[in-house]
Amino acid sequence: MGVVVTDIVRVSSSHVDGFDSLGVATVHEAQGRTGLMAPYMRPIYRPAHIAGSAVTCSVAPGDNWMIHVAVEQCKPGDVLVVAPTRPCEDGYFGDLLATSLMARGVRGLVIDAGVRDIATLTEAGFPVWSKTVFAQGTVKETLGDVNVPIVCAGTAVNPGDLVVADDDGVVVVAREACESVLKKAKAREENEETKRRRFAAGELGLDIYNMRERLAAKGLKYVRRKKTTE
Amino acid sequence: MGVVVTDIVRVSSSHVDGFDSLGVATVHEAQGRTGLMAPYMRPIYRPAHIAGSAVTCSVAPGDNWMIHVAVEQCKPGDVLVVAPTRPCEDGYFGDLLATSLMARGVRGLVIDAGVRDIATLTEAGFPVWSKTVFAQGTVKETLGDVNVPIVCAGTAVNPGDLVVADDDGVVVVAREACESVLKKAKAREENEETKRRRFAAGELGLDIYNMRERLAAKGLKYVRRKKTTE
Amino acid sequence: MGVVVTDIVRVSSSHVDGFDSLGVATVHEAQGRTGLMAPYMRPIYRPAHIAGSAVTCSVAPGDNWMIHVAVEQCKPGDVLVVAPTRPCEDGYFGDLLATSLMARGVRGLVIDAGVRDIATLTEAGFPVWSKTVFAQGTVKETLGDVNVPIVCAGTAVNPGDLVVADDDGVVVVAREACESVLKKAKAREENEETKRRRFAAGELGLDIYNMRERLAAKGLKYVRRKKTTE
Amino acid sequence: MGVVVTDIVRVSSSHVDGFDSLGVATVHEAQGRTGLMAPYMRPIYRPAHIAGSAVTCSVAPGDNWMIHVAVEQCKPGDVLVVAPTRPCEDGYFGDLLATSLMARGVRGLVIDAGVRDIATLTEAGFPVWSKTVFAQGTVKETLGDVNVPIVCAGTAVNPGDLVVADDDGVVVVAREACESVLKKAKAREENEETKRRRFAAGELGLDIYNMRERLAAKGLKYVRRKKTTE
Amino acid sequence: MGVVVTDIVRVSSSHVDGFDSLGVATVHEAQGRTGLMAPYMRPIYRPAHIAGSAVTCSVAPGDNWMIHVAVEQCKPGDVLVVAPTRPCEDGYFGDLLATSLMARGVRGLVIDAGVRDIATLTEAGFPVWSKTVFAQGTVKETLGDVNVPIVCAGTAVNPGDLVVADDDGVVVVAREACESVLKKAKAREENEETKRRRFAAGELGLDIYNMRERLAAKGLKYVRRKKTTE
Amino acid sequence: MGVVVTDIVRVSSSHVDGFDSLGVATVHEAQGRTGLMAPYMRPIYRPAHIAGSAVTCSVAPGDNWMIHVAVEQCKPGDVLVVAPTRPCEDGYFGDLLATSLMARGVRGLVIDAGVRDIATLTEAGFPVWSKTVFAQGTVKETLGDVNVPIVCAGTAVNPGDLVVADDDGVVVVAREACESVLKKAKAREENEETKRRRFAAGELGLDIYNMRERLAAKGLKYVRRKKTTE
Repeated sequence: MGVVVTDIVRVSSSHVDGFDSLGVATVHEAQGRTGLMAPYMRPIYRPAHIAGSAVTCSVAPGDNWMIHVAVEQCKPGDVLVVAPTRPCEDGYFGDLLATSLMARGVRGLVIDAGVRDIATLTEAGFPVWSKTVFAQGTVKETLGDVNVPIVCAGTAVNPGDLVVADDDGVVVVAREACESVLKKAKAREENEETKRRRFAAGELGLDIYNMRERLAAKGLKYVRRKKTTE
Repeated sequence: MGVVVTDIVRVSSSHVDGFDSLGVATVHEAQGRTGLMAPYMRPIYRPAHIAGSAVTCSVAPGDNWMIHVAVEQCKPGDVLVVAPTRPCEDGYFGDLLATSLMARGVRGLVIDAGVRDIATLTEAGFPVWSKTVFAQGTVKETLGDVNVPIVCAGTAVNPGDLVVADDDGVVVVAREACESVLKKAKAREENEETKRRRFAAGELGLDIYNMRERLAAKGLKYVRRKKTTE
Repeated sequence: MGVVVTDIVRVSSSHVDGFDSLGVATVHEAQGRTGLMAPYMRPIYRPAHIAGSAVTCSVAPGDNWMIHVAVEQCKPGDVLVVAPTRPCEDGYFGDLLATSLMARGVRGLVIDAGVRDIATLTEAGFPVWSKTVFAQGTVKETLGDVNVPIVCAGTAVNPGDLVVADDDGVVVVAREACESVLKKAKAREENEETKRRRFAAGELGLDIYNMRERLAAKGLKYVRRKKTTE
Repeated sequence: MGVVVTDIVRVSSSHVDGFDSLGVATVHEAQGRTGLMAPYMRPIYRPAHIAGSAVTCSVAPGDNWMIHVAVEQCKPGDVLVVAPTRPCEDGYFGDLLATSLMARGVRGLVIDAGVRDIATLTEAGFPVWSKTVFAQGTVKETLGDVNVPIVCAGTAVNPGDLVVADDDGVVVVAREACESVLKKAKAREENEETKRRRFAAGELGLDIYNMRERLAAKGLKYVRRKKTTE
Repeated sequence: MGVVVTDIVRVSSSHVDGFDSLGVATVHEAQGRTGLMAPYMRPIYRPAHIAGSAVTCSVAPGDNWMIHVAVEQCKPGDVLVVAPTRPCEDGYFGDLLATSLMARGVRGLVIDAGVRDIATLTEAGFPVWSKTVFAQGTVKETLGDVNVPIVCAGTAVNPGDLVVADDDGVVVVAREACESVLKKAKAREENEETKRRRFAAGELGLDIYNMRERLAAKGLKYVRRKKTTE
Repeated sequence: MGVVVTDIVRVSSSHVDGFDSLGVATVHEAQGRTGLMAPYMRPIYRPAHIAGSAVTCSVAPGDNWMIHVAVEQCKPGDVLVVAPTRPCEDGYFGDLLATSLMARGVRGLVIDAGVRDIATLTEAGFPVWSKTVFAQGTVKETLGDVNVPIVCAGTAVNPGDLVVADDDGVVVVAREACESVLKKAKAREENEETKRRRFAAGELGLDIYNMRERLAAKGLKYVRRKKTTE
């Protein structure tokens, strides 16, 4: 512990921009249904949507010292991702740290712990995805690490990975996979747009996806209720 | 498994209309405090209020295939009620299925599992009550049933039952009981309106409900604090 | 059980007014990080902020009778704090009781249980912090106590203590400590305002708080990633 | 509410006996993976195993009055199944009621709530599957029902259904399905015994179940680690 | 914070002895169903039963320093009761501290947090009731208090209160109430013994408690099932 | 997905043997309080203790197909570590798979999901640490991976890492760190043995660890209670 990696390789900004219009569900599907954080990670306000390059930060339980260290490593377009070394719901982060991150062009915070001052953060428009909201303060006694691999809300995150977060939650894309996932996600989105028009026109998924035959083969039966049950 | 009942009897539309202005708490009280789903069933946006006739759908864990089958069974004024056969938080439902249900005049979704694309659903005004929000995708491999009796969030639901959902949660009224519950709920509402005016004018529940005597009989004592505790 | 204390000593209204502009996190810090209720206590709408003098109410599980008794003990500027004698999520409180409390000038409700009619309460602007939202009704059979010491959401509350609640949760300040906590909280707020400006101007916490030396002493190391990891 | 059905049809005792040697997992598989109660239903001691015909009992939250009513409806070979009308963890049941059930030849209790006196129940050898252990007492004020359909731990139970419970949890088999499920469960057990011997002799599931081809068809790849990762 | 009260008044040893044979459920009932800790407080082994005078200890989250301070305040017949100032599951306590408490004649530990080395504690026969089992270590940085009023698992505990713990959980009796609660608990136990014999002989609670008339008055109806449901 | 690495490097058997007598808490401390799995990972029977080299297995939710693939990769002295790609409580593992693992000399299973047949597993003495016990069956439809890095119960596990599990939970030691952690753990154990004797002889932690001065410096105060509080 006590390591800060200062020269991480980031997702390219063109990739980040590419993900700016993509939702978490789409990205998650495009990379084979992997990389999603646990559903308890919720935004403090809605709607909210960000994409950015991860600066990772591992913190001791109840100790937010390393977040100050991590801030210095952040650049415009980054997303700060913080995970305690064991489950903790304390309020590691509030409006002063948010002010600092905003001054550095950071797009948002993802933290597997608590956050506070959410009225101020909401007003300021600084988006946070957290495990909980809790005013409980933290100390500054124990070292952690910045820009090392961490596990956040059940998902492995490496520094420089792409993070996308919206009203549905948070998904992580490995830096090396960004290009291929971006392509698949865009394709998926176009495909969905076509389908959306068909659904809106009243077509059924059963027909759009040609499900009827396979359902019948599996044994699906359409029946009429027994008269006595009326 | 693998059964779709195609000719269910629905709550009459006049009954559905009757419940349109009634809250979940009122309906729940009017039918003797039964039929409430568990409190973890929350709306994806607020305020939201629907009443409708249930189309039920039992799905395998992590498998949303049967929802496509269920959509075809839905008519205007219906509410789709989906329950997995064991606890599951996956995102069974998103904006494409919502588009399809909206095209069929369905009033909303009640699902004892996860939902995704909630920013889009919120914008479109399609109300959903769910156990959680989770982008995790589902497969289409296993049959379930449509329009059979199910247990959703701890409550038994039969096809054609009335479902009322609002910011307080979800309540189910058996089809056969709709008329009597409707009557009681309306009466209750009128009664509450009268009381509301008395409360607003400063009267106390102790007097409005004549509680003082019974409280005293139970032994309620009004005392002054001990001086030493100041 | 069955005791109502009728002459509690309240926080002075000047103290209450003093806390009106202070957030929960600030107050919690100012009194040495104590007095916070559990993070499951959430407001039914946001933003919301109140400060007031506690009227306490201990209720039996699933029984809201004593809340009616407590209402009579409430005065303008009070906050009603309700805790069941064991964990319970029932909907103890709805729009009629809210109407009654509003008529008496009560500023809000803090309840370690469920609440209902939240659409109406939201529209009326009556703020509630609760464990959950649940329409489940309660009975009126068992006595409890009013204005005795209680434990609410893990925190001890005495009648006449100061309660502050906002989007971050709920904090309790002992009546005797109000003056000193108020002073510290105000000082903290001013101090934070100065820091906020420095953070906004791009200064780092590392420098504002002089952390670098102590971090180095603890062994913090800034390193470059190994080339092979690229 | 307030109904006791006195002449339910029970599973035949020969069927009950047939299930006496069958585990919950086997029965659950034999009936198509349905009927399992939620995993929070745990035995108060281990090992424990029972099979019996369900007497169902619906109780008000925090009120065990109807359990006394249900006891009278129990016969030798029955299992009492109790569910509160909403989630409740109170200790509805203790050693006196157990003494009463044992005197009537009841095989055990399944309760979606709390139980107490578990040291005594363990010593007496009266098995209980419950949601929790909690000494919290209950009142006797509100009616419920006996021998009506209930939902217990997420599973529908009808009076006279077969209940099997062991260290793995609780499963319910509809009375009408008992014969066919029994046959399938016995067949499954014999089949498993053969397989167990092959597994014990060192054969692999990959070969016993002929999985290799299908795995390869799905794309499974056996690879050697990259040298650089050593 | 940082206060150790050195001269607390303890429950008399004769009272402690009196409670030695009484179960948690009995004591809880005898004092009007109050004083129970939350049901998540479970013994690390079973059966286990203790009664003793409380030494209270308030600790910072993740910091067990004050437990060492508390040990010195413990005398034979005491029970150490530890609560963190906010929810924490760390392993505050292990076999060394247990060795120290055993050397001082302490009867057991009640802790609203985690415990570790439970195999050793079980072998040594030192009983612990805790929120969880977790090996996570703690630091020694922050002061707390010893022998001040605390809230442990939702229950207020004062130094010198009586604590009874068994397989059902933990209950607290105020020191001043010990005599009267002891008397009521003994009476209750004798009464239960008589009833137990009647239940064992086949009598029903319906008759032992004369419930039939009151049940009928509330509207209980005994009915025969409809023939069509068979 | 769908990758099986066949030539992983294991912890040396001499290292595994070295950890055979070390507890989870000791190992966790010796490596700087890292590597612990979440406290919900509990053994199906107690006491239980294993150390071994990890074979990792990533499975789809509700699908245990890959466990059969993983079994073939296991050798004597291994511990199988299984994690679903999202939270799942299904019963992935039962007595047949245990028979297969025992035939291959595997020391135990660590699974972030459910297990079943625990009565049989207990009798056979095959230790399992799992998130829950649940009879719910799984399918065999979707590929996962064997011997790739996984996240299990919040902790990153690489194939060939050392796993130690006992009554306190599960800890993971990176293969490369085994030697140094082993040394530290042994030293810690010896040191604790000395301390244990001093504690048993009545010495206090305050003196053994020289805490008094530092406590006083932090402001700890020993006081006598106020007379009025008696």
